[in-house]
Amino acid sequence: MKKPVVLLSGGLDSATLLHSCAAEDPNVHALSILYGQRHVREIDAARAIAKRLDVRFTVCDLEHALRPIFAGATSSQVGIHVPVPFGHYADESMKLTIVPNRNAVLLSVAAALAVSLGLNTVAYAAHAGDHPIYPDCRPAFIDALSIALELGCGVSIYAPFASITKTDIVKKGAKLGVPFDLTYSCYVGGPFHCGRCGTCTERREAFRDAGVEDPTQYADLV
Amino acid sequence: MKKPVVLLSGGLDSATLLHSCAAEDPNVHALSILYGQRHVREIDAARAIAKRLDVRFTVCDLEHALRPIFAGATSSQVGIHVPVPFGHYADESMKLTIVPNRNAVLLSVAAALAVSLGLNTVAYAAHAGDHPIYPDCRPAFIDALSIALELGCGVSIYAPFASITKTDIVKKGAKLGVPFDLTYSCYVGGPFHCGRCGTCTERREAFRDAGVEDPTQYADLV
Repeated sequence: MKKPVVLLSGGLDSATLLHSCAAEDPNVHALSILYGQRHVREIDAARAIAKRLDVRFTVCDLEHALRPIFAGATSSQVGIHVPVPFGHYADESMKLTIVPNRNAVLLSVAAALAVSLGLNTVAYAAHAGDHPIYPDCRPAFIDALSIALELGCGVSIYAPFASITKTDIVKKGAKLGVPFDLTYSCYVGGPFHCGRCGTCTERREAFRDAGVEDPTQYADLV
Repeated sequence: MKKPVVLLSGGLDSATLLHSCAAEDPNVHALSILYGQRHVREIDAARAIAKRLDVRFTVCDLEHALRPIFAGATSSQVGIHVPVPFGHYADESMKLTIVPNRNAVLLSVAAALAVSLGLNTVAYAAHAGDHPIYPDCRPAFIDALSIALELGCGVSIYAPFASITKTDIVKKGAKLGVPFDLTYSCYVGGPFHCGRCGTCTERREAFRDAGVEDPTQYADLV
């Protein structure tokens, strides 16, 4: 039986995954990891989502520890900062948002927590829209890492959104009653979603295409 | 061409690997990671080894960050502490020294550093004697993780000792002029090697079987 640690970023994808897993097993454990992203606004969102759902929640703050690791990286999210690119999520320019080997680090730490808690799965909300830009969201990567973690510590990766779109996730989340208003995923990290960065653009489109009301406060409309 | 980050624990295996890599390319980069092991004595050893060889050296201190991750783990090295077991390195009792998913975390962080520095390889000194107890030292795990990291961030794992013994490593290190007296690998973490824990037992046997003089100061002989 699947007993998961759910990687919860605070965005709508992982919030939907958490709700989906909790519907199967209320003993799910949520994990948020800070790795040096420009803002901690999303961890506050993750905490609020876990609290609303009344699931156990762990924060792992790797930010300070990873500073020497990312010091030489050119990324809008960590290391040598470049401005957050605006535009469509799948644009070539979004490569500036790549954090070196981010997901292998996050998934490995989540698997360590799973072992420590006697759980056997890491649930991870990568989706099809992530594939063009982020190699560490693609099914081939997820499958290979799942095999490695299974061999190394007996934990496998569950990534049920790997082949569906964000629009599908919004539809699914709406059915599950996910509090979308609590979720946060803007790259800029202000008090409101900026409305113009890659994740904001993708978020808007997903709600529109899913025919689900978008409760997000976008700064460019305020 | 291989351009490696070498995971340097401060023990004789990784010190030998660092010397071997540096002999091929002096631009090698050494990385030591603190993850909550009982002592930092080994990081001091790693620093001294890197300094002697005049290679670049980064320390990544994950100890504080990983505390909530390992809090529930039963391990002599992190989490809920149990006494360090004494005996042979390959004994069943040595399972108490397992740190949950340790090597996937360390290798993933090392790969992130490689990407940040424009390097393409993580060199890792797991050896055949590690296999009975530590699943995350076995060739199947290393190969699977190497495939995952290659897909996720373009970095592969180089583990040239995966099928040789510690005795072979001591022979190789002696030829390369590794300063064995600077290396440290005791599980107990005192000022001298304890001489009785798994790694000390293995270390002693390796020098004896290799016919190489053992410069180690063992506490049980002092």
